[in-house]
Amino acid sequence: MSTTQLDGVTVQTQANVYFDGKCISHSLTLPDGSKKSIGVILPATLTFNTGAAEVMECVGGACEYLLAGSSTWLPSQAGERFAVPAQSSFQIRVSGQPYHYICHFA
Amino acid sequence: MSTTQLDGVTVQTQANVYFDGKCISHSLTLPDGSKKSIGVILPATLTFNTGAAEVMECVGGACEYLLAGSSTWLPSQAGERFAVPAQSSFQIRVSGQPYHYICHFA
Repeated sequence: MSTTQLDGVTVQTQANVYFDGKCISHSLTLPDGSKKSIGVILPATLTFNTGAAEVMECVGGACEYLLAGSSTWLPSQAGERFAVPAQSSFQIRVSGQPYHYICHFA
Repeated sequence: MSTTQLDGVTVQTQANVYFDGKCISHSLTLPDGSKKSIGVILPATLTFNTGAAEVMECVGGACEYLLAGSSTWLPSQAGERFAVPAQSSFQIRVSGQPYHYICHFA
């Protein structure tokens, strides 16, 4: 079961627009001070670099992802998560419906 | 001065994707129960229909808008707002940088 809503958050009203709008997110701060972002990736294959470690939770649609150092694309759909190490990178491939996500920072 | 953040909100994690991703928004509920959405419009000319009356507040970038029954495109930039009646429509034209907005429902 994916996280359908987040309560008590502070949301930055200006979005983060990446890759000419293929990825759009809004930054959130939760009541406990932790930072997350919620976003959408439109059909595309994109490469992201991490600073802090991240957990990507799918809350709608689906994607395939490829972690740095791996040669295997893996699927992720609503209700599933995958973890990305700090100071690393990963690719996301979306086809068909948009991929909706929560990015949890470690 | 535009609204840079909203506090204590409940946010729906799945985005609303309109016009093949040219407009992407997230729905919010504020502590007083009022509903808003925050979103981005990428370069395009789009037509929106209203149910309830809306106030569109620009929080980044700029657009031009044309209200139903008007023949004059008007500019709106960060810190500015325009009102749209209920059961009406309007066009938004964005060129260059994305238009970031808060949609306040009446």
